[in-house]
Amino acid sequence: MTDRYSEYRDLARNRQVDAVALVPGPNFARLMRHDFGTNERPLVLVIPVEGAPAAVVPNLELGSWEALAFEGDVFDWRDQTGYADAFAALAQHLPLGSLAVEGQSMRVFVHHALREAYGGIPITDAETEISALRIAKTDEEVAALTRAIEISETALAEVLETVTIGDTEKQIETRLLGALFSHGADGLAFPPIVAAGDNSAKPHAHARADYRIAAGDALLLDFGATWGGFCADITRTVFVGDPSAEGRDVYDTVLRANEAGHAATRPGATAHDIDDAVTRVLEDSPYDDRIRTKTGHGLGRAVHEAPYIMRGNQQVLDSGCVFTNEPGLYKLGAFGVRIEDDVLVTSTGSRSLTTFPKALQVVGC
Amino acid sequence: MTDRYSEYRDLARNRQVDAVALVPGPNFARLMRHDFGTNERPLVLVIPVEGAPAAVVPNLELGSWEALAFEGDVFDWRDQTGYADAFAALAQHLPLGSLAVEGQSMRVFVHHALREAYGGIPITDAETEISALRIAKTDEEVAALTRAIEISETALAEVLETVTIGDTEKQIETRLLGALFSHGADGLAFPPIVAAGDNSAKPHAHARADYRIAAGDALLLDFGATWGGFCADITRTVFVGDPSAEGRDVYDTVLRANEAGHAATRPGATAHDIDDAVTRVLEDSPYDDRIRTKTGHGLGRAVHEAPYIMRGNQQVLDSGCVFTNEPGLYKLGAFGVRIEDDVLVTSTGSRSLTTFPKALQVVGC
Repeated sequence: MTDRYSEYRDLARNRQVDAVALVPGPNFARLMRHDFGTNERPLVLVIPVEGAPAAVVPNLELGSWEALAFEGDVFDWRDQTGYADAFAALAQHLPLGSLAVEGQSMRVFVHHALREAYGGIPITDAETEISALRIAKTDEEVAALTRAIEISETALAEVLETVTIGDTEKQIETRLLGALFSHGADGLAFPPIVAAGDNSAKPHAHARADYRIAAGDALLLDFGATWGGFCADITRTVFVGDPSAEGRDVYDTVLRANEAGHAATRPGATAHDIDDAVTRVLEDSPYDDRIRTKTGHGLGRAVHEAPYIMRGNQQVLDSGCVFTNEPGLYKLGAFGVRIEDDVLVTSTGSRSLTTFPKALQVVGC
Repeated sequence: MTDRYSEYRDLARNRQVDAVALVPGPNFARLMRHDFGTNERPLVLVIPVEGAPAAVVPNLELGSWEALAFEGDVFDWRDQTGYADAFAALAQHLPLGSLAVEGQSMRVFVHHALREAYGGIPITDAETEISALRIAKTDEEVAALTRAIEISETALAEVLETVTIGDTEKQIETRLLGALFSHGADGLAFPPIVAAGDNSAKPHAHARADYRIAAGDALLLDFGATWGGFCADITRTVFVGDPSAEGRDVYDTVLRANEAGHAATRPGATAHDIDDAVTRVLEDSPYDDRIRTKTGHGLGRAVHEAPYIMRGNQQVLDSGCVFTNEPGLYKLGAFGVRIEDDVLVTSTGSRSLTTFPKALQVVGC
């Protein structure tokens, strides 16, 4: 029998577990074409190797749940009585000897509720195998990613026009957020990073309200819209006023690393191959002590997903895979440069879904 | 010895565990005055009953970590080599026989990494006790909440002016998001709910791009800005053109329930008392089969946190507690009404931080 759960049933069979459990998030959304928030209310879908699936669902979500046309039994629960009985009813209805879960989506309280209901059966982390099902994007999914990226690029162009010496990072962030939503973003892939001067040397900096951008500062913007359930992720680093010679040279190095990544991308290349090509450019430069991250990560319904583009990861990239190519060099206490594109592996090579210019750009004057 | 970890040390002592582990999120942010993203890279802070804390930190976050002035040892790890060795080093440096964690913040892959490194010691969920430390808000925290609420109310007023028959929910959502950020929101407390007609009957509806708002529709907006790390959460339901007699009566019932909640709020009241006062109004109406949720939840750094305002929860509310008072009535397939205020318990009674008018409002004509 083939149904929409077949690939999960196969996955469970291959792992020699009795079932796979999904919680709201990217895997659930892809499978059920609908998502739920993650809050204090557990919602779990259990897919056994054979037979009907079953679910524990908060009573207040039953109206939305109807849209799923779910084939199995649902055990709902209300805030006033708690969820323990619903999990116990699930375990009685669908007995299991082992279970695989999404380690990066499921939280400990849901894990413990399952463990309690199922009397301590082994619950293993199958994040890698489950998320692997999402790696090859369909044309429809690539179209949604492309739209999210277009919105992000339009907002970036608009905001860079406005940057002025004396602006705070926070002011630029506010303008960026306004531009993203006015151009049609559904949401944010992650809280944007807007970082100038020494703050740009922190890969995950927070925008400051008390630092005014000065002439010569690097200004790094790393952000992305979501659209149709998919995430954009783009970074550009510009200079506010003329950069130093070191700034120019670092920028040129990072850009060459980014370009080496594009050149290395083709179906059949491994994640290792791409990170190696990128990182070698950085290592062969005078700035090899400023390398702090791998080249990138898969991109789709989650902003960070498989495949992780790093040395040692021998995963082969096939057509339909989308990942970020985002080399950077970070001089702590001084400045950082990162250039990030979203790249689609095609049947013949690759195509950058990000098309925003990468030549060194001076703004604010 | 008193230090910033004292309340966590006491908590561990009271639970008879050797340590508490925190991951990025509201508890971590409150303690360390800085937060990190939650992604595929584990970051854990372990606070033992006695002695220095220790942490596992991704290498690329070390620049940001410096701002914490951390007193303990840090075991960092790089993407290329993975985190298992850092967890093993932590376990060797800080041996433990038991550990309490935040069940609603920590994900399974981090739980499993700790379990692996610590050789299967009991890891229990102390979410309730840990989050209880956040319940009483300081004046500074109330000020941040108030600012987040003001931004949200300003945006709501602006958007309601623009609603027109024939708009889609998606169009209104886009305008709402633009308004929130243009008025200074740092981010969103959660993805906004903009739901009209039958969609308003789903407590957690998604905005539709293909439904045009019709005369007589209920239009429910539930959303909140974040500002300074704190979350607003406001719901208003308006009618687009004249509501039906049933619509008016349901609205009046929900408003009376909301007012009963305000009247019942004072220091010393329990969460049960408030939900009971609110729910009794709904139960005593002709619409008792449309009750689908508890009255509300605590509000602060997380948009859903303790105390949960529901019958059976005998938790006493003290001065400084902030929670949502959000009764609703939901007629599946037809319409729903919810009215939500954010309420501060004061030393003498309560004060609604939400001040947006609640009289039935007709828009779009």
